[in-house]
Parts: sequence; structure tokens; C-alpha cells
Amino acid sequence: MHGSVSDPLLDTMNFLNEITLRYPDAISFAPGRPYDGFFDIEQIFEHLRRYLDRLVEQGVGPQQLRAQMYQYGPTAGFIRQELADWLRDDEDIDVPAESIVVTVGAQEAMLLVLRALVAGPDDVVLVASPCYVGITGAARVLDIPVTPVEERADGFHCADLEAAIKAEKANGRRPRAFYVVPEHSNPGGTTMDLAARRELLEVAARHDVLVLEDTPYRLVSPGERLPTLKSLDRTRSVVHLGSFSKTLFPGARGGFAIADQVVVDDAGGTGLLADELAKIKSMVTVNTPSLSQAAVAGALLAGKLSELNAESADYYGDAMRSVLEHLDLRLPADRRAALGVSWNAPTGGFFLAMRVPFRADNAALTRSAQDFGVIWTPMQHFYPGDGGHHGIRLSTSYLTPAEIAEGTTRLARFIEAESERHTENT
Amino acid sequence: MHGSVSDPLLDTMNFLNEITLRYPDAISFAPGRPYDGFFDIEQIFEHLRRYLDRLVEQGVGPQQLRAQMYQYGPTAGFIRQELADWLRDDEDIDVPAESIVVTVGAQEAMLLVLRALVAGPDDVVLVASPCYVGITGAARVLDIPVTPVEERADGFHCADLEAAIKAEKANGRRPRAFYVVPEHSNPGGTTMDLAARRELLEVAARHDVLVLEDTPYRLVSPGERLPTLKSLDRTRSVVHLGSFSKTLFPGARGGFAIADQVVVDDAGGTGLLADELAKIKSMVTVNTPSLSQAAVAGALLAGKLSELNAESADYYGDAMRSVLEHLDLRLPADRRAALGVSWNAPTGGFFLAMRVPFRADNAALTRSAQDFGVIWTPMQHFYPGDGGHHGIRLSTSYLTPAEIAEGTTRLARFIEAESERHTENT
Repeated sequence: MHGSVSDPLLDTMNFLNEITLRYPDAISFAPGRPYDGFFDIEQIFEHLRRYLDRLVEQGVGPQQLRAQMYQYGPTAGFIRQELADWLRDDEDIDVPAESIVVTVGAQEAMLLVLRALVAGPDDVVLVASPCYVGITGAARVLDIPVTPVEERADGFHCADLEAAIKAEKANGRRPRAFYVVPEHSNPGGTTMDLAARRELLEVAARHDVLVLEDTPYRLVSPGERLPTLKSLDRTRSVVHLGSFSKTLFPGARGGFAIADQVVVDDAGGTGLLADELAKIKSMVTVNTPSLSQAAVAGALLAGKLSELNAESADYYGDAMRSVLEHLDLRLPADRRAALGVSWNAPTGGFFLAMRVPFRADNAALTRSAQDFGVIWTPMQHFYPGDGGHHGIRLSTSYLTPAEIAEGTTRLARFIEAESERHTENT
Repeated sequence: MHGSVSDPLLDTMNFLNEITLRYPDAISFAPGRPYDGFFDIEQIFEHLRRYLDRLVEQGVGPQQLRAQMYQYGPTAGFIRQELADWLRDDEDIDVPAESIVVTVGAQEAMLLVLRALVAGPDDVVLVASPCYVGITGAARVLDIPVTPVEERADGFHCADLEAAIKAEKANGRRPRAFYVVPEHSNPGGTTMDLAARRELLEVAARHDVLVLEDTPYRLVSPGERLPTLKSLDRTRSVVHLGSFSKTLFPGARGGFAIADQVVVDDAGGTGLLADELAKIKSMVTVNTPSLSQAAVAGALLAGKLSELNAESADYYGDAMRSVLEHLDLRLPADRRAALGVSWNAPTGGFFLAMRVPFRADNAALTRSAQDFGVIWTPMQHFYPGDGGHHGIRLSTSYLTPAEIAEGTTRLARFIEAESERHTENT
């Protein structure tokens, strides 16, 4: 009998899974999964074949082809040049292939970056809060302390980051990096405008703090794309984390990190942070599976990834707009003002954030699922510290139009009832 | 500019890579790669198709099939039942599917197990030494201390393990696990006999230490298979680590852990260690890529894995025997006795261990590559502590018969010259 790895967040995720299983007829605004109506099982074979055919066209012989797909491969991946070409053409990010490390999803990239940057007990990582559970999870695996920088209602403010950096330094700690999802964040649904992006880069350079830019929803959101932090980065202050889970499919576990920072080794030699990430990766997964890499590269050969995802982006944009419209119908402005309910209105991404007058905790979620047939995620689970007790995350990516219509009706009923209950109790 | 992740072992691996690049005409006994003459690029498509066809035969509909291959999947994997069936039929290991976690190679399994078992600064992990660099690497990523248990010339002795456990306990530390490759170990080429296996299980149960059993070379070695520690385990003292890198192909990164130990959580509830591993995996790679899982399951559908690997096992057995025969020709018994050279004679696996009278360090390796055109791995790199200065690891898996004949000739010349050099210097 051995002691368990205790983890409040995972306990909560388990709780959500249990609720979902216990109330199978409930409509769920919880899972942040991509809509899979666009997927066709034959695409797997097509992507792989397209990539292998291209290698043959390029003169790669059978033996070399076999070695690439079957043998242990380079730790940083064999599709780095393909990723560098795509990033330059589609994302205006111009970096050498050597600065890229291909990873098993962006999750592994987070783990590698945290491990590389945090060397001692005084090193800390800052995160925009509420924040994606992947980064706090990776930090927990490595026992790395995380300092939250609270978002305001309109998102993250650079002044708050700078204050947090100064407070950490005043306490003798060394802030190493700041994690942020600049557009359509999970769970907050917030997006940094261009001025905020430039300001963030200035703050980062001034304090020698790296920005960890995570970008899962960029290419599956409609409308104008703001430039990535990495494309604006002139001081190598940004480590860019990428995921193909939404643009290709989650099962491939395709991810990468761009880490073009110069590092100094013990012997005084210099190399790239990417090399350090690859070293650590050799002790985590050795290399990213060849099939995953080939599937990603094959998909990139089919066209510009942003254009291939235009249909998905429209779909997700429509879903988000539909949820917002239905919510406005069920809880019009005057009604929600009277109740003390509000929500933001993202133009893309998978999530929106709602504020309610009652405690949106596991007990409230259970009542919601049992009595009203609707499931959502308590926002407090995304706060590394304390907070979010009156917040609800709604995911809009996975539901059909009919489910959105019915789900928002149920949600409005739950909110009305819970608000009344709250008023009686206070 | 950020500080580098310093690592003597990785520096050495880099040195080996450099040597290999600098002397491309040298014959290398260094890489532990599988021979890839058996691979055919179409097998990838066949394995995937075979698995998907089976799902369809079993009544899995298109939507469910799409979800399984494309969506985020269960953290512990979707081929656990297939692995449980194979382990029962082919390896006499009878465990429920729930005790299995599918991982990105055995490397990720090592990381997960170490993270789950080591909770505090007094927890230590013991390893048979010299040992596989994957386990010490995973420990290094997690800053977990490793205590070596020195192998003797004929391999690992349980009495030495028990003494090490007692010494750790006397120092107030808590030995949590002992890592060992019971057959055809890397780098030592040693195999534990049945009596030693039973004794190890007794020692483990007596001291409440888990045995981490790693088995990469079992099914690709000729001759009778001794029972795995896991198949002999009646006290749930063994966590079994599995890899398909040699039995299928390394690029798939197919691996798994069997962890049927009962653990107690903070609330007093019980679960399996496998559940804990899955929780940690959700923060490392989220889930093993669907393509890798499908390739493994598709291969298992093609027949019994041990039988599918009979040809490979014969090939590797022949290669090992050929290296041993050629070495004996080049350095007959009386000659090597005079020089103070010896080696063991594994019947399988990829590696044999040689003892030489001179220091087999990076400088000697450079002379060997430059002046004699032959490359090998200094054994000292596999010692977590100090040791192995007069040891050489020879890999026999990857060379052709012609390369073996020429390579052993060159190696014998190098050993003669270096021994003479050594005699002059002493």
C-alpha cells in the first residue's frame, strides 16, 4: 500500500467526469474538445501517405525512409524544417528549424520548458490566472511553484504582471517566465490587443523574464488574426508553444516549442534553449512518435493550415455566437442585471466566462446536473490560488445547434433558481 | 542568456555522436538500435488498417471510430484490454486491463512511476549498476536521488540489494523501488536465473520495496524465456515496464506499465497505482498518440508477438554468437589472459560487457576511432556513481556479418595496442 498523489485539480476533473457519467442526459458545456464532424478516418492514411510520397519525390530512398519512420529518431524531431516553413508562411514567425522541438502535444512542451528554466528553489513561474490547467499541472509534476497574476474582467494587464515580478524579486525570488494564452484564453475567453502585446514584450525584456506564449485556438477562430507575440519578438523574449490538437486532431498529439534563446553551458559554450529542451525530452519520451510527426507534416502538405481550418473557424465562431445569442434571449440585459449575472463575449476560441451571484462550486454543479440537466465547469478550478468562486466556464466547441438551444434554456433556469436560493440564504 | 541544464551523461552521449560523425568510416559497436532490415514501410499502413478493420468487425460505428482515433482519449490508453490479452496469452502475466497504462515508450513509464513513488526528499530509488540510462535520466528530470547496487561479474546479487536497502534505512531514508532488467541487461548483458528471481521477490516483499522490471529484449532473444518477475509476483511487488521498440519498431514509441498495486488516497479510499500513473501522465503527454496505440494493437492482431519476433530473435542471437566467436578468434583465451582482457557471453539481448586493463574513457575511444576505425561505448557512462573505468559495452544488434568480422579485427588491434600502451605507462 503506497500513498496517493494528491491533487485537488485532478480530483475536480474526476468529479466532472463522474457527474457526466451519472447524468448522461445532461447537456454539457464542460468539455473543451474539438467538434469532430469534420474528421474522416481515411484522413489518417492520406496524411501519412502524402508525407511519405513527398519524401520519395525528394529522393529519399527506401532504406532511409524505413529508418526515419521505424528507428529511434532525432530527439527534437524530423519535421522541424516543415514546421519552420509553415510558421514563416502562415504565421509570420521566422525562426531557424534548429530552434524548434517537436513534442507530444503542447503539454510535453510545457513540461520541458519549465524543467529547463527553473533551476533552483528560488525560481518561480508566473501565470495569468485563471489559467489553463496544463501549465499548472506540468509545474506540479516538477514541484515548481507558480505565482498567479490575476486577470481583470477584460483580461490580463501588463501592469499587474510587472507588479508581481517586482514583488517576487523583493522577496528574493527569481521570476523566470510568464505563461499566457494571448487570444481566446482557456478558461477566460480573453484576448490581448496589439498594444498589450507590445507592452508585454517590453516588460518581459526589461525584467529578463521569458514569455511562454500558448496558442491552441488561433487558427480555429474566425476573423482577423492578431500577430503572435513571437512574430513581434525582437529580443528573443518569447518561447512559443504550439499545438495541432485543434487544427489537425487531438489524437495525433502533435505539438512543438520554439525556443531560440541563447543559453550558456558550464564550459562557457553557447547553444539554443531548444537544445536544452531536446536533452530533457530524451529523458521524458525520447522522441515524438514518427507516425504523429508524419501525420502533422502530411497535413501541412495539404495546404496552408490557416486556410484548411477556415471552415472549422467559421463553425466555432458560429457556435460561440449562437451560445451568446441564446443566453441573451434567455437572460436579457435587464434580467441579468437584476440577478447579478454577466458574461463576456469572445469572438473566437472555445470558451466564455460567466459571473454569477452564487457560489459556483461542486455542490451547485451537482444540483445543476441533477435538477436541470445541464453541466458546466466551476471557474475556481482554474485558479492556481484562491478565486473564481462565482465564475462558470462554458465551452461552446462541441455542442450541436439543438443542444445549444436546449442547453442555454436549462442553464438559464438553473441560474434563476440558484440566484433565488442564494437570495433566500442571504 | 539562461543557464544550461548540465548533464555529464548527455555530454557523453553528445561526445559519442560527435565521434560517430567525425569518423564515418569507423565500424560502431555503440548504438543499441534494432536491425531494420526486417522493416517494410507498408507495415505501418497494414497495422493501422488491421486494427481499424477489427474495430469495425466488432461493431464500432464510424462516429465512435472517429472519436477514438481523432479525439482526446482516455489518459491510460484505449488498447489496455488488447495488452492484457496479449500479456496473458504470450507472457503468462494475468492482470486486469485497469492495471495497465499505455505510455510514450517505456521511458515515459519510468518517469511516471518514479514521480508516483517518490513523495519526499527521504525517498530513494535503487538501481542495478551499471544500468540503463533511461532510468537515471528520468530520475534526473525529477531530481530524485538514485542509489546504485553494483552488479558482480555474473550480474546482480540479491544480497547486495538487501544490504543497500538496510544501509539506506539505517540512514533514515526510505527505499521505494529497485530498477532492474532481469534478462540481457543494458549495458551488462547479464540475466537473472529463476532462483535469483524468486529471491528478489522475497527481498522486495520483506522490505516493502517495489521492483521495477524492465524487459525490452525478452522477445527478441533466442532460446528459452525465463518467467518475468511479474508472472512470479504473488505480492504485487512488481511494476512491469514494457516496450514495443524492439518487438515492433522504436518510431511508434509504444510502451506501457503494469501497476496493479493498491494505493490509498487522502480520503482513505483505495485505487490502483495505475490510476496514479494516469493522473501524472495527464500532466506529461495527456495521452499516448492514437496512431501509436493503433499500430501496436494492429501488430498484436497479426499473431503472437513472441512468434512474430522469432526471426528477429534468431537474427540477434546469431549476431551475438558471431561477435563472440570472432572475438575469441582474434583474442584467444591464452592471449586475453595475458593481456588481462575478458568478456561475458550473453545468449541474447543487444549487448555484451568487456573488461580491459586500460582506462576505457573518452580519450581511449577517440584513439580507437581515429587510429583503428572502431567505436564502442565506455562502460563508465552507465554507472550512476563512480565505476566501470575498465569496461567497454559492445552492441551486437545493428551490424552486418561483414561489419562484425572487420569490426572485431579492428577492436582486437586497438585492444592490443592500448594494452601495450598501458603496460609502458605502468
